[in-house]
Amino acid sequence: MHFSDPLPLRSGASIRAYDLAYETYGTLNAERSNAVLVLHALNASHHLAGLYAGQEKSDGWWDNMIGPGKPLDTDRFFVIGVNNLGSCFGSTGPMHVNPDTGRIYGSDFPVVTVEDWVDAQARLLDALQIETLAAVMGGSLGGMQALSWTLQYPQRVRNALVIASAPNLTAENIAFNEVARRAIVTDPDFRGGHFYAQDGRAETKPKRGLRIARMIGHITYLSDDVMNEKFGRELRNALLREGAAPEGSDRVPAGDYRYTTQDVEFQIESYLRYQGDKFAEYFDANTYLLITRALDYFDPARAFDGNLSRALARATANFLLVSFTTDWRFSPGRSREIVKALLDNRRDVSYAEIDAPHGHDAFLLDDPRYTNLVRSRFERIASELESGADHE
Amino acid sequence: MHFSDPLPLRSGASIRAYDLAYETYGTLNAERSNAVLVLHALNASHHLAGLYAGQEKSDGWWDNMIGPGKPLDTDRFFVIGVNNLGSCFGSTGPMHVNPDTGRIYGSDFPVVTVEDWVDAQARLLDALQIETLAAVMGGSLGGMQALSWTLQYPQRVRNALVIASAPNLTAENIAFNEVARRAIVTDPDFRGGHFYAQDGRAETKPKRGLRIARMIGHITYLSDDVMNEKFGRELRNALLREGAAPEGSDRVPAGDYRYTTQDVEFQIESYLRYQGDKFAEYFDANTYLLITRALDYFDPARAFDGNLSRALARATANFLLVSFTTDWRFSPGRSREIVKALLDNRRDVSYAEIDAPHGHDAFLLDDPRYTNLVRSRFERIASELESGADHE
Repeated sequence: MHFSDPLPLRSGASIRAYDLAYETYGTLNAERSNAVLVLHALNASHHLAGLYAGQEKSDGWWDNMIGPGKPLDTDRFFVIGVNNLGSCFGSTGPMHVNPDTGRIYGSDFPVVTVEDWVDAQARLLDALQIETLAAVMGGSLGGMQALSWTLQYPQRVRNALVIASAPNLTAENIAFNEVARRAIVTDPDFRGGHFYAQDGRAETKPKRGLRIARMIGHITYLSDDVMNEKFGRELRNALLREGAAPEGSDRVPAGDYRYTTQDVEFQIESYLRYQGDKFAEYFDANTYLLITRALDYFDPARAFDGNLSRALARATANFLLVSFTTDWRFSPGRSREIVKALLDNRRDVSYAEIDAPHGHDAFLLDDPRYTNLVRSRFERIASELESGADHE
Repeated sequence: MHFSDPLPLRSGASIRAYDLAYETYGTLNAERSNAVLVLHALNASHHLAGLYAGQEKSDGWWDNMIGPGKPLDTDRFFVIGVNNLGSCFGSTGPMHVNPDTGRIYGSDFPVVTVEDWVDAQARLLDALQIETLAAVMGGSLGGMQALSWTLQYPQRVRNALVIASAPNLTAENIAFNEVARRAIVTDPDFRGGHFYAQDGRAETKPKRGLRIARMIGHITYLSDDVMNEKFGRELRNALLREGAAPEGSDRVPAGDYRYTTQDVEFQIESYLRYQGDKFAEYFDANTYLLITRALDYFDPARAFDGNLSRALARATANFLLVSFTTDWRFSPGRSREIVKALLDNRRDVSYAEIDAPHGHDAFLLDDPRYTNLVRSRFERIASELESGADHE
């Protein structure tokens, strides 16, 4: 959807005109009251779930959670996924032309915040003529957006599901983001953020930096335990067995160290390199900077001298918060801070701490205790909608 | 000290001739029985403690622990610090000329392991005519060397102090090492590891990669708690107050976000960049690869099907192990694995888990519970030496 009114941003800048890529699932009811907005984290998009024509397997990032009969049941809810401004999956971002200059934004794309995204999402809802959301839902950075919805547009949100999230980033979180950004920015192919094809110059993707950024990300998404379980100290050459090794591969006896500083020796190295290579092919470097900065900047308590309880006083939604025990990037303690601040304001809040081994990644994985919790929350929301509709 | 006999390495390669830089403190007694070998981790050297001529402040890395009247008292012990092979502080390393080729080693420097280092250290002791060590002592990777001493030369080690260490690296540890290595190796200035001045070509230090490597390191040396306490979400511009800001600096009102993706915004970013810049000036990139690989490869249980108890059966030394509660790089659980394996063999082992907020860095910091423990252990060793000397 194209928006031609400028969007003022928290930085003081504005975006003159922009597109938002979005997808919807299910049917908006006559009362226009069953809409659920689902918000994405760093490396995801408006494509939440389901199959495009010709696909056999969904590449929607929350396909296990959203669909007909699934915990967020698209037979009952009208679900909206929207790609955020500055991202690289269809909405206006750094790889597009700045209408003010006629040149590709690159690193001149304005810094966007969680609050700016929520404003843009609200305009999308206006355009879709949806006044009130049955729910907002998101994990990680998506959870921050869900929380921010309840503060920026309290009257428009009935329920908020805030999963594996935090009221702000810790110093350690910012530190990991900063290392990833430095890896990207100091890659010579980054060219100050103006690496796109323009003026007869070919694109030079800063793939070295993106690979490092993604490798760091993957380490922090997993728990130490699950890494040990999945990879441990397994050597890569342990897989290069008779018949299993591709022709001409660098075969060595299974289980022997090869004594190399630059080649892959351990399985975990192979996994990280693969993830880094894959990511560097499709992700935009400026988007990486923008989205990690949105994470860094989010801090609703900041305007209240760090007092989260006062910051959340505006929220009127009913809340479900979920955290995962081995998530060290957005640890349970961070979710509990939000729960406490909401309880200080006597809000309706449920909280579940799921004992899961998978670290931060757990919010994207199937765990019946987790998915059933989301399912039953949406059942409650559906029945409230039905009884609420009677009154309207 | 120069060694002209080739040193055979675990990789099958050998180093034909080499130098080891070392320093000694205190006096070797007549029985030659009061020697303590202190082993360094990634970014340290043979210079453990004390002042060089003209210095007012020691830049020895363990000056708080070692010296006259200090926990490891150089009035009673003859303390030896040795720079490991492959390092960049004086011993033969990748920046030196390979006598076999007449060319600088660069990335052709052979892969060295903890076991190889211990072999080289043993030859140094031979040259110093020290048959038996009163103690070996090290933290982190230095602790791995201390442990390995008790396995490779059990008859030459009376006591081992293994601090903030582990019987091997976890997958997560290897992963962090690998990201750091990839950052270095993919820096164009690394030039495949042959970046030194040679053949009329100027040196091109891969500083971008070294900076990233060091930033990652610093994050993992600190605890989340101490990072929050030291830096939290403090903005850098909070320091740029009237008078405190240098002339012409990019001043903004204290406490305001500047909304930038590439400039420093938070104190933690400033700290990490500073640490990265400093490190990139003096540390050698090939050394970084070699030393992190030595960490990755260390795994004494490997030859025993992963059974650490069987692996440690050879050790006869008396042990003190120390870990720190918030050390997530070498967590207390890893030290307890060593303790358990030693107890399985009915060895004399003491273990202390120090409740310290500083993460892995704690092993280098002053904490009376920790330093007093080391002090009393060395007092015990000293009195054993005195009574033992009577028998000899």
